[in-house]
Amino acid sequence: MTARRQAVLGILGGGQLARMLALAAAPLGVKTLVVDSAPDACAAQVAPLLAADWTDYAALESFARQVDVVTFDFENVPAETAHWLAERVAVFPAPRALAVAQDRLAEKTLFRECGLDTPAFMAVDTRADLDRALATVGAPAILKTRRLGYDGKGQFRLRTLADADAAWAALGAQAAAHGLILEAFVPFERELSVVAVRGRDGDFRTWPLTQNWHTDGVLSLSLAPAPAVDGLQQRATELARTLAERLAYVGVFALELFVKDGQLLGNEMAPRVHNSGHWTIEGALTSQFENHVRAVLGLPLGDTSARGLSAMFNWIGELPDAAPVLQAVDGHWHDYGKQPRPGRKVGHATVCAVDAKSMAERLAGVARALQRESQAEPAIQVLG
Amino acid sequence: MTARRQAVLGILGGGQLARMLALAAAPLGVKTLVVDSAPDACAAQVAPLLAADWTDYAALESFARQVDVVTFDFENVPAETAHWLAERVAVFPAPRALAVAQDRLAEKTLFRECGLDTPAFMAVDTRADLDRALATVGAPAILKTRRLGYDGKGQFRLRTLADADAAWAALGAQAAAHGLILEAFVPFERELSVVAVRGRDGDFRTWPLTQNWHTDGVLSLSLAPAPAVDGLQQRATELARTLAERLAYVGVFALELFVKDGQLLGNEMAPRVHNSGHWTIEGALTSQFENHVRAVLGLPLGDTSARGLSAMFNWIGELPDAAPVLQAVDGHWHDYGKQPRPGRKVGHATVCAVDAKSMAERLAGVARALQRESQAEPAIQVLG
Ligand SMILES: Nc1ncnc2c1ncn2[C@@H]1O[C@H](COP(=O)(O)OP(=O)(O)OP(=O)(O)O)[C@@H](O)[C@H]1O
Ligand SMILES: Nc1ncnc2c1ncn2[C@@H]1O[C@H](COP(=O)(O)OP(=O)(O)OP(=O)(O)O)[C@@H](O)[C@H]1O
Repeated sequence: MTARRQAVLGILGGGQLARMLALAAAPLGVKTLVVDSAPDACAAQVAPLLAADWTDYAALESFARQVDVVTFDFENVPAETAHWLAERVAVFPAPRALAVAQDRLAEKTLFRECGLDTPAFMAVDTRADLDRALATVGAPAILKTRRLGYDGKGQFRLRTLADADAAWAALGAQAAAHGLILEAFVPFERELSVVAVRGRDGDFRTWPLTQNWHTDGVLSLSLAPAPAVDGLQQRATELARTLAERLAYVGVFALELFVKDGQLLGNEMAPRVHNSGHWTIEGALTSQFENHVRAVLGLPLGDTSARGLSAMFNWIGELPDAAPVLQAVDGHWHDYGKQPRPGRKVGHATVCAVDAKSMAERLAGVARALQRESQAEPAIQVLG
Repeated sequence: MTARRQAVLGILGGGQLARMLALAAAPLGVKTLVVDSAPDACAAQVAPLLAADWTDYAALESFARQVDVVTFDFENVPAETAHWLAERVAVFPAPRALAVAQDRLAEKTLFRECGLDTPAFMAVDTRADLDRALATVGAPAILKTRRLGYDGKGQFRLRTLADADAAWAALGAQAAAHGLILEAFVPFERELSVVAVRGRDGDFRTWPLTQNWHTDGVLSLSLAPAPAVDGLQQRATELARTLAERLAYVGVFALELFVKDGQLLGNEMAPRVHNSGHWTIEGALTSQFENHVRAVLGLPLGDTSARGLSAMFNWIGELPDAAPVLQAVDGHWHDYGKQPRPGRKVGHATVCAVDAKSMAERLAGVARALQRESQAEPAIQVLG
């Protein structure tokens, strides 16, 4: 018997995604090392943490020496940091794929090249650009920063053309540094996401489509597999595969979609495990976290089938009482170990069931006990 | 929003059970702190570790101050250590319950008091006792240390009365320190275990009966729910409940049973999460690890139903190739992050399926790919 060395996965960013990646890596015998500037980042409760910021190259040098593969909890790691690391150690997804997903303009351009329609959009760099864009795109519209947006941050909704000044006042200052994009506001029928994974050998899989509901730009509830998606699953899978192959993508990513007149429109791509895939921990044969670890380490991918139905509640700001979820049959609690703070993602809960009827009942029961009826209501409606 | 403090679970011992407890505690928002004399104990990869031995009271004092509840990865923690800690912090299971389960004589006596028959047995303290015990119990028989035995260690099998000298040569030296017990060797039809959990409020649940196969005294394969158990599930549940209530037990424990002429005989009780319950991670709605954490912290217990069928392979000494398990549908890999060593439990794999036929096929497929046909064979047989 020869001594063994365990693989070490480096994770840039130490939030809940890193935490859940580390928890999924451990049973595979994979150690993790997290980099975050905050020494009390929540992933540090389950994995060793190197406290450093993205420009601390001395620390990153030591990090690169300690790990076999680097991946991301946080997609807005500066491109220079990702490139610098990629010269020293395997980085997945590759910095080029990350760069596309970091930029709403590059992303939507790629979507169209891949045959995925998007809301009308135009780049905005100056106040005059905004007027031109509004003339083309029309109102209502949304002005967004091209880079560094997440959870609906860096966005301004324009109801009419008269909102242009207010939009510029809110985001104009960021035009020079991050660029802006104006998008037509889409009166969509529903929001879906497809979470996909591609291995180092090109093996490609998607989990079943997930239906999502947002509140104030932040994911509030997910239901999977999304009911009544007809041909959309196949179409979404093909699009995700085309995107992944174009980017030579390795790892998990999510493609966020609007459904308008029964057609898919591309909203954005998240180059990492995604909030709308958290249900896969209990609801699929292999979770997005485990498959991401498998993919970036070059291990065989696991089956992405759903076990039954799952609904995921996101907990924003602070956690509700855990008891109703702990007491629910097939109810699963996920506390990220964070301090409460307005707007912060502090945890989630997943409730699973074998069919739509029991899913609706279980969801309603948990929501009632938590006084979160309005959070669960839209999913209960589509469950019919 | 007020700042929160997360509960901290202290775990005595840092092996794979502590590791899997820590992984189950994290999603509940529960931090863990492990004590082990080996700083590289495998649980230290996923939880902070305090390196100290069981008599380092200065370290234990600091440990007690940092944790809310103490529990065990290792049931052979000295009784004095457990008592000393229980004067300072909540310890579950309580030292009294631990003491009974640490002693094969006390344990079997309790089984009988609870209405659970056992193999014939007699305490042995001297060489003369051994002769007397053999006269009563008969041969074949097994001489075991009363305390500190695990994985078949500290046992000697006597085929005939003529083996008495050899048995005494092997174990007589331990008679003074640990005591010995002679048990009739039971030509059992099958071995079952029931894994049970009792909460601080007395709530009691069992997982479905598991059928187990041992090789050289070490668990080799488990199959759950055990097929064709008729009335045995109810009887095992009642016995486990009686035992738990007698001991005011809090947490998970396993009751290992022989089936002889269709009747249950008590072999032993493990006062902790148990190897025969590892399948519950993927195969039950709530795992033994999560329910143990819930129980000792006073949280509501989760549902212990099985999702379908599960088979668990134990990996002893070193890990086989992971690929066949990672590629199997509903196959799950558990690498404990240990160095290989003969006889050491270094990992396990669980394969799940929805019915007996697909379970048998999947199990056979994995076993063939791993060249572990003989390990899987007995389970495939009972699956029919
Ligand atoms: N063009 C649009 N038309 C209609 N609704 C939109 C549009 N763009 C965004 N939204 C709404 O706002 C939500 C968040 O927008 P977006 O996905 O651009 O934000 P983000 O900050 O990148 O969020 P995430 O955390 O999901 O990555 C969308 O899921 C959708 O509900
Ligand atoms: N009296 C007996 N008759 C027949 N077989 C026995 C007897 N006692 C033990 N065995 C066999 O040896 C195995 C291990 O024995 P036992 O449970 O006493 O060992 P242990 O060291 O306490 O192991 P564990 O790690 O399971 O706690 C049993 O599961 C059974 O297969």
